Amino acid sequence: MGMFTTSSTSGLPETMAKTNRSLEHIFNPRSIAIVGVSSEPLNFAATVYLATSLRFQFPGPIYPVGAEGEEVSGLRIYRRIVDIPGQVDLVIIAIPASAIPQVIEECIAKGVRTIHIFSSGFSESGEEEGIMLEREIVALARRGGIRIVGPNCMGLYHPSASLSFGYNFPRESGPVAYLSQSGGNAFHLVRAAAARGLRFSKVASYGNAADVDESELLDYFAADSQTGIIAAYIEGVKEGRRFIRVLKEATRAKPVIVVKGGTTEVGMRAVASHTGALAGSNAIWEGLLKQAGAVRADNLEEAVDLLITFLLMPLPQGRRVALVGVGGGAGVHGADQCARSGLLIPPLSQKIVTRLREIFGGPGISLGNPVDTNVLDVSPQQFGDILKTVAESPEIDFIIAHIGVELGPFTWHRVEVLEGKVETIIRAARSFTKPVAIALHTAASARSIQTVAEVQQRYFSSGFPFYNSIGAAAQAIGKFLDHHQRSKA
Amino acid sequence: MGMFTTSSTSGLPETMAKTNRSLEHIFNPRSIAIVGVSSEPLNFAATVYLATSLRFQFPGPIYPVGAEGEEVSGLRIYRRIVDIPGQVDLVIIAIPASAIPQVIEECIAKGVRTIHIFSSGFSESGEEEGIMLEREIVALARRGGIRIVGPNCMGLYHPSASLSFGYNFPRESGPVAYLSQSGGNAFHLVRAAAARGLRFSKVASYGNAADVDESELLDYFAADSQTGIIAAYIEGVKEGRRFIRVLKEATRAKPVIVVKGGTTEVGMRAVASHTGALAGSNAIWEGLLKQAGAVRADNLEEAVDLLITFLLMPLPQGRRVALVGVGGGAGVHGADQCARSGLLIPPLSQKIVTRLREIFGGPGISLGNPVDTNVLDVSPQQFGDILKTVAESPEIDFIIAHIGVELGPFTWHRVEVLEGKVETIIRAARSFTKPVAIALHTAASARSIQTVAEVQQRYFSSGFPFYNSIGAAAQAIGKFLDHHQRSKA
Repeated sequence: MGMFTTSSTSGLPETMAKTNRSLEHIFNPRSIAIVGVSSEPLNFAATVYLATSLRFQFPGPIYPVGAEGEEVSGLRIYRRIVDIPGQVDLVIIAIPASAIPQVIEECIAKGVRTIHIFSSGFSESGEEEGIMLEREIVALARRGGIRIVGPNCMGLYHPSASLSFGYNFPRESGPVAYLSQSGGNAFHLVRAAAARGLRFSKVASYGNAADVDESELLDYFAADSQTGIIAAYIEGVKEGRRFIRVLKEATRAKPVIVVKGGTTEVGMRAVASHTGALAGSNAIWEGLLKQAGAVRADNLEEAVDLLITFLLMPLPQGRRVALVGVGGGAGVHGADQCARSGLLIPPLSQKIVTRLREIFGGPGISLGNPVDTNVLDVSPQQFGDILKTVAESPEIDFIIAHIGVELGPFTWHRVEVLEGKVETIIRAARSFTKPVAIALHTAASARSIQTVAEVQQRYFSSGFPFYNSIGAAAQAIGKFLDHHQRSKA
Repeated sequence: MGMFTTSSTSGLPETMAKTNRSLEHIFNPRSIAIVGVSSEPLNFAATVYLATSLRFQFPGPIYPVGAEGEEVSGLRIYRRIVDIPGQVDLVIIAIPASAIPQVIEECIAKGVRTIHIFSSGFSESGEEEGIMLEREIVALARRGGIRIVGPNCMGLYHPSASLSFGYNFPRESGPVAYLSQSGGNAFHLVRAAAARGLRFSKVASYGNAADVDESELLDYFAADSQTGIIAAYIEGVKEGRRFIRVLKEATRAKPVIVVKGGTTEVGMRAVASHTGALAGSNAIWEGLLKQAGAVRADNLEEAVDLLITFLLMPLPQGRRVALVGVGGGAGVHGADQCARSGLLIPPLSQKIVTRLREIFGGPGISLGNPVDTNVLDVSPQQFGDILKTVAESPEIDFIIAHIGVELGPFTWHRVEVLEGKVETIIRAARSFTKPVAIALHTAASARSIQTVAEVQQRYFSSGFPFYNSIGAAAQAIGKFLDHHQRSKA
């Protein structure tokens, strides 16, 4: 049994045992056992946890454990945890709930440090039996100095330790830590963020939070040197005051983006039967998150936009934005969305408009702000000059440059074509200091969506924040500015 | 000169001339001239209007007109309209604004019936010169009995007449008519709707509405036998009372979905410099549209969802929905979104829950409503039985069945796999009468987005409405129910 676990749980009160250090070993196991594996082709434990561990080339030993079969993927299947020859740090359990206490007994005998329980059928069932079973396993594990992740969750993703529950998750690390009470939402946010170029430090899908809970994960991520920003999908918390205290400390260290699931009456009822948590009213959460310095996202898509904004967007001096790009209707709608997000779209001064007209003086171009460069595309040189001129305008603090990929007769379905347009913006933007956000919008067909995704991925390293619509950019940047204004106050 | 045009404009007051019949010939030209064509490789008129007419195999003669070159795409380039040997019904003009009056004079001499002016530089410029020029061309055209579409717009799309301004628009017809003041938004909505399986009867991008305007188009579409539903993107109207009267009549004939651009102060300023229209405040439009029986969409994406709902969703008896699908977090969030859209998510009776438990009695399944069939996928047989059982529940009026394509360990990237799941839902849904909407959600990667798009296209003919998220389904169906409730009242 590991030193930290032993010392931090032996006889000390529960709150003392929950130190940051105690989670370090959870994310860094040196060996894994997977309970519930069989050689059946559709076996869940094998097709998910074993296959993913092998794909991530987990460097330590992997021990399949199951009641049947001799071998899977070239690895021997052990009948019981105690049959395993070496030390086992992490045990992943995917067998029916009722059989789990026996496995935990074996884990204690074996000196296991962490158990992740995928299985459901515990407190979230709302039934006495499941509630009692959850209490039983927690008591058992505490007695043996074992930490539990779950039950009723997907578990842990730590790419730099080659640990993952998502087969197609990125192998590389990044600055985003994420805690998600829902397994599905853990998958969704990781994949949606990865598709935009983001990468993760550590992710925990923690389900019922019977032992390791949201506060402890938040506290750990706040101190984690791999992590630059934290996202959370939370349905409910069990110890409200502790959570608020930890959240306040965490937001002092790094930005924390929170998606709250279950904010309507029926949503709260759904929460109760999903993870057994008490959801709390929308108004309470709104106040709580604001007061603690967290940033609230309405949904996972917005959470990804906020992650990109807080990681990549330099803080503008103020709220005055210039919208520059092709498409009059898009500009009108974008202006509406900017206004609704609390941004200001001041008219540009006559001096600037005159200079813009010198650069691109054709008819049908609205140069006031939004600056509509019209459906007849301007040259890259002209577009760059327009951006530079707008950036020099004392009326504005930052620019949203936008490209409508299916907004005109010529669609930008080809990656090279869209890249050329993005290059133009980036080259111009590097010549001035005002922040520039880039929206690649109106991707309507699967083909242009794919092109946009590919370009966003490739240009993530450029350091410019990319969005899928002017509205998404406006909303995220609006919240970014709100957050900094509140922090200053 | 055609009979309708002659008789309907010769000496009759303007309002009399604007009859439904007078637009019939606009959408059904027998010959087209395209002014502004050259043999230059990037020539706009040639690469857009000529190339599109050829791709759509426009059956009548196409006459390129331009100052330079002898031939383009195997067609002779005429110097002037009057040089063209045959009758010319429609003239598309894409040359600088100042040169247009002269072309119109020629059109009058030639007996042209309709002119579509792509070019900008008219009233939308806000400048005296452009405003006067617009007045001049309208007066000229009226004198010659010619109707003008535009200026400052993309023009006409009428697939059954092989007329189009979008090269990659569908060749087939469908029930949706669409009028858009913005050319970019005309492109975007047509493409976004086409990607979901919708097809169009007739589309007009009408820009500054100097002659043919929103009221006339609306009136025409309302009487058009090809059209089953009307969508509109409107920035502003010039004759408010006439518009309200026409809109009221139109909504009596078929559903009318309206996206209003420019609803904030800055958005209205953007409208003024985009199409020169007076936008009107958000509150005025909200009341006006409601009173006239139209359905307001907040943006083009929601407009597409509403088109699908009004075309395909049978009217539920009430607002009580059951959410059935995989994903606890998705269900929680979906329940929140349903509640916000004015839908009710009643708990299912104990009798139904007991029967559901008999079908799929594993742990970790919330059966209350949302009915979460868990990340461990149920069999098609079980999923079908669950749907049928839920449909029998007297507590609910309709079902949103949802599939999270990237919400679990196994993603449904392959079309065949997702189709199998959709088939299960459709087969079950055909065995009962309560309406079923299908949400294919959480497509995070370009690959799964493509798969979802393909499946939606293929299953459009199944008659079931498909959505990209539970929230989008809830919002559209909520507005659909609101609309019918208001109509009854």
